[in-house]
Amino acid sequence: MQRYLLKISYDGTSFHGWQVQPNGITVQQTLCEASGKMLGTQISVTGCSRTDAGVHAKEFFCHFDFEKCLPPSAFIDGLNSLLPLSVRVIDAKTVSGDFHARYSAKGKTYSYYIDTSAVQSPFSSRYSLHYPYELDVDKMNEFCNTLVGKHDFAGFSSSKRTVEDTVRTVSECFVKREDNFIVLTVTADGFLYNMVRIIVGTAIEAGRGKLDEKITEIINSLDRADAGDTVPAKGLFLEKVYY
Amino acid sequence: MQRYLLKISYDGTSFHGWQVQPNGITVQQTLCEASGKMLGTQISVTGCSRTDAGVHAKEFFCHFDFEKCLPPSAFIDGLNSLLPLSVRVIDAKTVSGDFHARYSAKGKTYSYYIDTSAVQSPFSSRYSLHYPYELDVDKMNEFCNTLVGKHDFAGFSSSKRTVEDTVRTVSECFVKREDNFIVLTVTADGFLYNMVRIIVGTAIEAGRGKLDEKITEIINSLDRADAGDTVPAKGLFLEKVYY
Repeated sequence: MQRYLLKISYDGTSFHGWQVQPNGITVQQTLCEASGKMLGTQISVTGCSRTDAGVHAKEFFCHFDFEKCLPPSAFIDGLNSLLPLSVRVIDAKTVSGDFHARYSAKGKTYSYYIDTSAVQSPFSSRYSLHYPYELDVDKMNEFCNTLVGKHDFAGFSSSKRTVEDTVRTVSECFVKREDNFIVLTVTADGFLYNMVRIIVGTAIEAGRGKLDEKITEIINSLDRADAGDTVPAKGLFLEKVYY
Repeated sequence: MQRYLLKISYDGTSFHGWQVQPNGITVQQTLCEASGKMLGTQISVTGCSRTDAGVHAKEFFCHFDFEKCLPPSAFIDGLNSLLPLSVRVIDAKTVSGDFHARYSAKGKTYSYYIDTSAVQSPFSSRYSLHYPYELDVDKMNEFCNTLVGKHDFAGFSSSKRTVEDTVRTVSECFVKREDNFIVLTVTADGFLYNMVRIIVGTAIEAGRGKLDEKITEIINSLDRADAGDTVPAKGLFLEKVYY
């Protein structure tokens, strides 16, 4: 058995997330079917993360095992010719049998795009939240700074979470203006369910001046009700995965 | 009667071009329907150009007449609430009855995006031609330079053209590298049917070194067979319209 690691990228607009599920087409299913077609046998592909419906990935890793040794580059051309243009295999390599796309990951960077234009461009509506209101970037960064470090993020996680341990270490979290966009970037050793989208929703409340007294307190409340709304998936990108 | 001028932007991916036609949904039809719904009467909208199926517009102008005087800004919010996200009204103003979106235009700028990455990003496949081969930008510009000025562009026009006069004045034409893209920009007082897409196809031949002896001659041949292929519509953007 040889284990292969694929680096892929996908536009999540038309997918029901990564993970195979009964209703709706997922990226995992699309990739399993293309691999199976290419290799003539059923292939099970394991991803680095379960991204939600509508979330995009500039960089996403997944592994699978196959009995034969093939030059990894064959998977780039072979799979790309079978996949829709919304999913691309960027790179492929062989890894040892104990490498795991998800458990070997040491951290990930996500970014979230907020389009502050008065009218949202038709070219950004698939890839950003339209929020044409005044946002104070300094206040957003004041809130983002409080997240850096090792914290219990229970208050920044959907009640649908399945994990027990809600402590994560955030190594960077900041917002930056880029033309008409405000982009929030966050890097951590791991993320809870909906964590980035709740962080963004809370950063927006901070930017609107709604949190002034408690802007540095929310991280300690551990109460989901104190954080902001869960913003839509379409503005969220998985940017980098670290091994 | 009051004439209104709308500045719109649209993602052409899902449209059969601007102009109303029997098969497939067009931008003009979409806009007429939204205007009719908003104003409670049938509205006829005239565009600045007949863009082809799949062509995008960062900026496009169209006018229509309506019996009542409304604040033009009402059309921005009103129409955007009725239109799909792929068509946005960016601005609106009143103009005199002799202003015409098409005939009053003094010129237009188009740009064409060529993605030269080994694997095309899923985020650029709707908006560029994938061309992962070596292109010599200097040779492309050598060809582009020959187009600047007043010329008969009969050789750079589809045989389906309906106009008699094929002389146009190009005020700028150049290519530029932008990260993994090569972008061709061309400004003229008018364009023949498929003219930009044939210019790009010929610039690509120049960039591949296929035109070396005749690179400065093609503009004079007036023969469509001497120019390059018509490249796909999806890489083409109407960038600016001048009045």
